[in-house]
Amino acid sequence: MNTRKISDSTVRRLSLYLSLLRDMSASGTALVSSVELAVGSGTTAAKVRKDLSNFGSFGKRGQGYPVEQLRSGIESILGVQRQRRVALVGVGKIGSALLGYDDLPARGFGISVAFDIDPKKIGRSVFDVPVLSMEELEDRLSADSIEIVILATPPPVARDVAERVRSAGVAGILSFAASKLEPDEGLAVRWMDVALELEGLSFLISSAANGSEEM
Amino acid sequence: MNTRKISDSTVRRLSLYLSLLRDMSASGTALVSSVELAVGSGTTAAKVRKDLSNFGSFGKRGQGYPVEQLRSGIESILGVQRQRRVALVGVGKIGSALLGYDDLPARGFGISVAFDIDPKKIGRSVFDVPVLSMEELEDRLSADSIEIVILATPPPVARDVAERVRSAGVAGILSFAASKLEPDEGLAVRWMDVALELEGLSFLISSAANGSEEM
Repeated sequence: MNTRKISDSTVRRLSLYLSLLRDMSASGTALVSSVELAVGSGTTAAKVRKDLSNFGSFGKRGQGYPVEQLRSGIESILGVQRQRRVALVGVGKIGSALLGYDDLPARGFGISVAFDIDPKKIGRSVFDVPVLSMEELEDRLSADSIEIVILATPPPVARDVAERVRSAGVAGILSFAASKLEPDEGLAVRWMDVALELEGLSFLISSAANGSEEM
Repeated sequence: MNTRKISDSTVRRLSLYLSLLRDMSASGTALVSSVELAVGSGTTAAKVRKDLSNFGSFGKRGQGYPVEQLRSGIESILGVQRQRRVALVGVGKIGSALLGYDDLPARGFGISVAFDIDPKKIGRSVFDVPVLSMEELEDRLSADSIEIVILATPPPVARDVAERVRSAGVAGILSFAASKLEPDEGLAVRWMDVALELEGLSFLISSAANGSEEM
C-alpha cells in the first residue's frame, strides 16, 4: 500500500479509531463492529469500512474486526508502534502544560528534553524533563536522534528555531506559534492554533444563525 | 452567498489570510496581491483567487486586493467582526495557559469567565479572569450570553459538561478533552488534540521514510 495516498482526513479518523481500539484492547474486548467505531469517532459505518479496506483490513460479516490486529495495523500505518523521540522548544505557559500532559507519553510521544532561553529555567527539570539552553539545541537534537520537535516559542522566533531544528535532521515539527513556516522538502509541519479553531467555530455558528434567519 | 457551502479547509485558509491582512492593515498597507497571500499562508495564488472569488471579492489586475475591504469581508464571513463571548471550563494546566494567552483576545476570543471544581481555585482570578464553581455554570453562561465554551476538563467528565453547556444555550465548544462528544443538532464542536496532531506528523514522517526506501 502506498500510504502517501491516504488523505489528511482519513489519517485523522485512523487516530480516532486507534484511540477507541486501545481502550477496547485494554479492557479485553476481542471484536469490534464498524458501527461501534463509527459512533465512537463521529463518522458513519460505511466510512469506517472504506477507511479500513484501504489498507486491506476487512471485518467478518456478523463478527466484526479483531481488535488487536486492527490496533497494531493502525499503529503501524501511523508509525506509532514504538515511542517517537520528541523534544520541546519553549518552556512557557503552553510548553510547561505540555510537559505535564500525561496523554502524550501514553500515546507514544513522551517529551525527553526541552530547550529555553530563560536562565531561570535552564538546568532545571519541569515534570522530570530537563530544560537545556538554546545553545545546546542542534547538538542535543542530533545526539538524541530527535524525530519530532514541538515548537512553543513566541511567534517571532519560530522561523529561526524551525530552521535550526530542520538543519539538525529533525523530520517533523508541531508548532504552537502562529507564524507560518516556509514549506520545506524533508520537514513535515503541523500547527496547533487555538484562535484558528475558534475562528472555524465562529464561522459554523454564524452560518447556522444565518441559515435559520433565512427561513 | 450560502456560507454553508464553504469547506472546512477553505475556512482554515480564510483564517490564515485574515491573520496576514490584519498585520498589513496595522502597518498601513493598502493593497495585497494573491501571490503575497499565497506565500504567507502556504498555498497557491490560484487557490487564493478562487477562495476570494467565492464570496465576490475580486482583485484588480496589476493592483491587487484592497486590504481593508478584504479584511472586513473575511471578518464578516468568519463572524469575528466583533468579540465573541467565550468561557473556559477546567482551569488545569492547559486551561491556565489559555487564560494567559494574549493571542485570544487579540483575535476576538477573550475569555471572560472560567469554571472549575477545585475549591482552591474557585473565587480567585487567573490572569484577571474570575474562576467560578461548576454549580454556577448554567446560570452564568446564560446570564453572560456565552457563545463559545473552551472545554479543558479531564476527558471522563467532558461529555457531561458538554451536555450542560449545550443545555445553557451555548452554540459552540472547542474541546481539549480527547473524548469524542456526541454530534448534536445546534451545537458546533471542534477539537484540539495534541497527540492526534502528533500521530498525523508521525504518519507523514513514516510515509516519507517508506517512500525513500522504495527508491
